[in-house]
Amino acid sequence: MKLYMSARAPNPRRVAMFAAEKGLQIPEQMIDIMSGEQRSDSYRAKNPLARVPALELDDGRVLCETRAICTYLEGLQPEPNLMGTDFEERAFIEMADRRMELHLFAPVANAARHTHPALAVLESPQIAEFGAVQSARVREAVAWLDEVLARQPYVAGGRFTIADITAFCALEFAKGLIRFRPGQEGFAHVQAWRDRIAERPSAKAGN
Amino acid sequence: MKLYMSARAPNPRRVAMFAAEKGLQIPEQMIDIMSGEQRSDSYRAKNPLARVPALELDDGRVLCETRAICTYLEGLQPEPNLMGTDFEERAFIEMADRRMELHLFAPVANAARHTHPALAVLESPQIAEFGAVQSARVREAVAWLDEVLARQPYVAGGRFTIADITAFCALEFAKGLIRFRPGQEGFAHVQAWRDRIAERPSAKAGN
Repeated sequence: MKLYMSARAPNPRRVAMFAAEKGLQIPEQMIDIMSGEQRSDSYRAKNPLARVPALELDDGRVLCETRAICTYLEGLQPEPNLMGTDFEERAFIEMADRRMELHLFAPVANAARHTHPALAVLESPQIAEFGAVQSARVREAVAWLDEVLARQPYVAGGRFTIADITAFCALEFAKGLIRFRPGQEGFAHVQAWRDRIAERPSAKAGN
Repeated sequence: MKLYMSARAPNPRRVAMFAAEKGLQIPEQMIDIMSGEQRSDSYRAKNPLARVPALELDDGRVLCETRAICTYLEGLQPEPNLMGTDFEERAFIEMADRRMELHLFAPVANAARHTHPALAVLESPQIAEFGAVQSARVREAVAWLDEVLARQPYVAGGRFTIADITAFCALEFAKGLIRFRPGQEGFAHVQAWRDRIAERPSAKAGN
């Protein structure tokens, strides 16, 4: 197997952190998205949609999309479980993970891509008004997450799951790219959770 | 169980079509999103994020997020299988489904929400420039899907899966809200696939 990854990109980091939690060490090839390498013919032969990460299997097939790669790794190495042990738990963890994807990760990514000058190479045209609205949505999502984390230790409930990885990678990206830090905005529960997650060895993977 | 649904909304339709393929008949309660009922206190007690659909279980817990609800229904009624029979197939179907979600469904929804006057109640502010860019991305996604469907009969490969439901509901929404029809734009493979899917009894569910 081989993982196609990119430096300082939040989706590759999700896969790296997930693999690290599993103790999986997968050979990596870095794709330089800031210079457009993902749009090269050689990479498009792997992923025609020109996105990173991608996982090339030993039979030559290429599995793309962050969460689909995690589903594969969960099957390959079931312990520790990060996505649910039966269909009911799988569904509730997927709910939590998707809430983090759709309401936190996506607004962070949109805000960064539409406002940060360095990301103009990834998002054209950048629409500043849209970026500002998305930044406001990040704050709304974190306000809601703060209520959740006042009641329970992890995003999906009582234990660490893929939903914590999605939320953590979103917030780490937000810190660097849109200067959003939960603690400074008054979201103490999110900040305390973030600081706990940052102590896990996996938090350094893909960073 | 009870499903909270909304008329003419693409995400509830995905769940309705998925349940219909399974032969599941679940009592429904309609939420009028055009009048803002999803933001009522009584509905927020079910889903604090004020989104439809949601599935209330018999023990009172509420499962939200379209694809998570499908994961639950797949576990409840495994046949016909729509999401993969082992982890490898589950991962590849999830890849296809997410590509349809991220590259087709999301741009359709964004284009509609940011340009259609009737949807101003759901998206504020509407940003016309963003809507126009998203419409262009719909076309790019359908162009890519047309190449895929030239090689294989269904979105994820040789058989009907959840990825067909996601793509079909996206395109049906696009037809009504942003006046996009694959056949008129020169995408004959997508149009032929769409017409085959439309003949399935499940295609009428949630419409």
